[in-house]
This record gives sequence, structure tokens and C-alpha cells, in this order.
Amino acid sequence: MASVADVELEMKRILSRDPSELFQAAWYLISTGGKRLRPRLLLSFNEVFGGDSERAIRAAASVELLHNFTLIHDDIMDKDETRHGVPTTHVKFGEPIAILAGDVLQSESQHEMARAVEGLPMRRAMAILESHAAITTDIARGQTLDMRSEVMDYREVGLRFYYGMIKLKTAVLFAHACWTGAYLAGASGKPASAARSFGLNLGMAFQMADDILGLVGDPQITGKPVGSDVRNGKKTLPILIAIKNLSGSDRVSLLEKLKARDPSAVDLIVKGGGIEQTRSFMLKFKTQAESALRSMPNGPALEEVRALLSSAVVREK
Amino acid sequence: MASVADVELEMKRILSRDPSELFQAAWYLISTGGKRLRPRLLLSFNEVFGGDSERAIRAAASVELLHNFTLIHDDIMDKDETRHGVPTTHVKFGEPIAILAGDVLQSESQHEMARAVEGLPMRRAMAILESHAAITTDIARGQTLDMRSEVMDYREVGLRFYYGMIKLKTAVLFAHACWTGAYLAGASGKPASAARSFGLNLGMAFQMADDILGLVGDPQITGKPVGSDVRNGKKTLPILIAIKNLSGSDRVSLLEKLKARDPSAVDLIVKGGGIEQTRSFMLKFKTQAESALRSMPNGPALEEVRALLSSAVVREK
Repeated sequence: MASVADVELEMKRILSRDPSELFQAAWYLISTGGKRLRPRLLLSFNEVFGGDSERAIRAAASVELLHNFTLIHDDIMDKDETRHGVPTTHVKFGEPIAILAGDVLQSESQHEMARAVEGLPMRRAMAILESHAAITTDIARGQTLDMRSEVMDYREVGLRFYYGMIKLKTAVLFAHACWTGAYLAGASGKPASAARSFGLNLGMAFQMADDILGLVGDPQITGKPVGSDVRNGKKTLPILIAIKNLSGSDRVSLLEKLKARDPSAVDLIVKGGGIEQTRSFMLKFKTQAESALRSMPNGPALEEVRALLSSAVVREK
Repeated sequence: MASVADVELEMKRILSRDPSELFQAAWYLISTGGKRLRPRLLLSFNEVFGGDSERAIRAAASVELLHNFTLIHDDIMDKDETRHGVPTTHVKFGEPIAILAGDVLQSESQHEMARAVEGLPMRRAMAILESHAAITTDIARGQTLDMRSEVMDYREVGLRFYYGMIKLKTAVLFAHACWTGAYLAGASGKPASAARSFGLNLGMAFQMADDILGLVGDPQITGKPVGSDVRNGKKTLPILIAIKNLSGSDRVSLLEKLKARDPSAVDLIVKGGGIEQTRSFMLKFKTQAESALRSMPNGPALEEVRALLSSAVVREK
């Protein structure tokens, strides 16, 4: 059975090239860790449907390369200086090489997916490659909406905007990973759609878990300061909910604190039910993800999928 | 017969999406012009071998999207503020959106090439997609070598290093465009290799023409100051040749002026035969490109290929 260690070896193999200053930068963020949730999900769905593990390892490596490409460019755009508790790629290697390193990961991701589908029936191969080629555009659209929201007034950002943004920014890649794992193994029609739906719902829940940690996470564990999303002017779900729920002087005071990027706004967000209601929305998405698994063949692989869902939602960092 | 106007319409169609701030930025550089040499070459080679023009338009759009992606990121890395006589994408839209705009062009390029090969025999489709997916990595490798050369001493950069760098940075994309045009039309074996070889030799000659313009081009036409490559510390072929040819006080003086990024170094580069010899190397590559066409079917399409080769070499900007 294929494991995430096989995926890491495959990524290392792909990135062992010259010029070394470029490929060391491309490998660096991957080497600092990460949960590897997307490749794990791809491998597990592939196993649920009895797929070939060599193909799945390549596809999983492709998805993780793509994910790391988006993180490297995202850190440059956000001017973030640390990730996984260590300096970001552009801080360590300089911005020009970090831009190129991201570009290379995206290129190698496409190349690796093309190798993963080699020998499949043409229509299946092309369906995977077209889905994979389109993902970066979706993520970039979500990141653009995220940036747009940063300069919007808090009262202008509605829940529909928020859901559209996190779907593109976060959930589509999870959906693509789960679907690719199942589809590579020969699943189609309803089972393949169910895998995609599972990934989409998991991704929505994953982002909400992030939103909660961005306000009330333990700084010792997350590596981020208390109320970090308030400090950065982020329009996350708990904040939007609290603004909606509060009235009178509490609401005025919350909006003032948010505008001043004052982390003590967190107390009012909690008072307005922002954390509690976000948790309840998150659990709704988790339940929807679980129900997408109902008609899938039971066994250790499906158990692993369930465990990955839990770890995406119940987490401290 | 397909024309470059069809390719421009196709790119415009692909990039007419929301959010507008992202896709306007992705379209902006394309809309400011450019020679469209790569898509023109692809279309012409496709016609030489009697290919389907609808596929060729998509493939040509894909190649031009990729080229513009590399230019947008390159301008960010080099901190260039103008291109085609107008502000660069990051100057006009800010760096975060410019990074994303480049990422989107790369993503749409892959997606469009997947659509271009739909319905081809599997092995032919995959050969094109794998070649296309690998190109960005090659270009990034070339750009990395270019950056490395900027901090190297002039005397450390040899001709072999220079040739390896410009092959990756510039020539492989021309080779890929020409080969793809021919291969899409059903060419394989020797004719397909000859198209690739033509593109590679054209690309080497194209870069040398750039090197000459970067020293003695007319600032009114190129939009760059006199001796701009000297000002930027670039290690271009005329400079490397002049250092090799000069001796005594001329050589000492040239190295001093280069180190000081003094554009009057151009006079010594001319004296050392840098321009003249680069022109003669360039014409050798042009002749090699022409000889790759020998066994191809004559006609207006091959005449167009020859005209494109001339325009790549004999040009004022």
C-alpha cells in the first residue's frame, strides 16, 4: 500500500536537479513539513476504489507540488515571514528565486500529472489533466477575492461572498485531490462525484477550522499571535457572524476595534457567537462530507478517509 | 487559413472572466502588443504539414499565454518598470495581482493545450502535453542561470555557460512552438525533429539579436537607454567576446568600465569585435535554421516561416 513517504520520495526525486539554487528553493518549503492532507486523501480514495498505487503516488505528488507552489507565492504576496515555524521561501532565498521556485513547482506538478495518467483511456486521462490544469486559476480567483475583501468595509462582506471565496481559495483543491484519487482508480459517475463532494465539504470545514484558530488558537501551537486575523484585517466567518449578531453599543465597539485592528476584538466576537456558530457551520460541512461516503466500499481505506476528515476539522494548528 | 488575429481572439475569450481585477491584469501585457513570433511560427509549421487550423489556434494561444506569463514574472524579478513602452503589469496592478496574473496565464496555458490535443491519438496528445508542461521549468532554469551570471565576475562566464543559459531561457520555447505546430499536424520522426531544430536555432539567433540591440540599439526604437545591458551588468555574448579578444590596457579598461556599469564600455566592445563576431555567430545559427527546412514541402507556409526567421534576426527592436 502506498504511503505519504512514497509521495515525499517522489517529490524529492523530481526536484533533485540543477541549477541547485533553484531546486533547493523549490524543495525547501516541502521539506519543512506540513500535514500532507491532500496527498493522503488522494491515496486513500484511490485505495477505496482499488486503484494502482504507482499512478496514485505520482498524482498525489503532483497535487502536493501544486499546493506548495500556491503557498510560496501566497507568502510573497502577503509578505509573510514565517511558515511552519521557519522563514518563508522568499525570506530565505530572496524574492526572485522564490517566484521562480513556485513557477517550477507548478510546471513539475503538471508534468507529473501527465505521467500519472499515461496509459489510461484517453477520455479519463484528459478529464484528469483538464481538471488539474484549471485548479490554479480557481485558487488565484479565490486569492483575488480574499485580497479584495481586505480593502472592503466589514459590513460589505456578506456570507455568500465569504463562501464563494473559500470554496475557490481552499475547497476546490481538496475536491480535486479526492476526485482524482477515486477517478484514477476507475470510479466514475456517482462514486466519483461523491468523492469530489466529500473533498469540497471537507475543504469548507477545513477553512472554518483555520478561521477559528486565526482568532482563538493557542499562539504557542499555531505560531501566530493571539487574534492574528484581526491584526491582518481578514474577513473571516466568526467575525462576519459576530457583526451580524451583535447590536447597539457592542456592535459599534466591535466595528471600531476591527477597524483599529485591535486583537481585543476577539472577546466581542466570542460574545456575538462568532466562534460557536462557525463551529456549528463547520460541523454541518463535516456531516455533509461524511454522508458523501455512505455508498462507498467499507474497509481500512475508508476508515483512513474518515480519520483524515476528523484531523482536518479537529485540530490545534 | 488561421491567422494571429484568431489567436488573439482566442486569448481574449479565455481571459474574459471574473474577478475582473485578476483577468484584466492577466490580459494587460498581451493587449500592449508584442511580435507574436511564437504563435506565428506554430501556425505556419502547422500549415506546412497541412494540420487542422482550429487545433493550431488553441495551441498557438497556449504558447503565447505561457510566454506572457514568463514576461510578467520576469519583470517583477528584474524590477523592470516598462515594457512595450508602457508600465509593466506589477507597476500598473501591484505586485500581488501581477504574481497571480502570471500564475493564471500559466494555468490557462496548460488548460488550453489540453483542449488543443483532445481527440488526437493518445501517444501524440501526451507527447505534446508533456513537452508543454516541462517548458516552464526549462525557462526558469535559464532565468536562474541568468541571475547567477549577474553576480559572477565577467571573466568567469564562459561561452559554454552563455550558450546553455540562452538555450533554456529563450530557445527551448521557440523549439517547442515550432515542433508543436508540425507535430499537431501529424509530422513525426525527421520532419518533426527538423521543426524543433529550426526553432532552437532561430531562438539562439533571436537572443543574439537581442544582445546586439541591448548594446547598440537605437534608444528611440528599442525604448531602452544606450548600452542598457552594460548598465544592468548583463553578461551578453558581445561583451564576453570582446573581453576574450582584447588584451593589454584595452582589456583592463573594458573590465573597469563594465564593473562601473559605464555605458561608454560599448566603444571598447565594438573595438574588440564583440558586435561583429556576435553578428557572425547569429548568422551561423540562422543558416542552420534554414538548412532544417530543406526537406519540408515548399509553398506559401514555408515562405512565411522563412520570413519569420528573417524578422527574428534582422530587427531594430
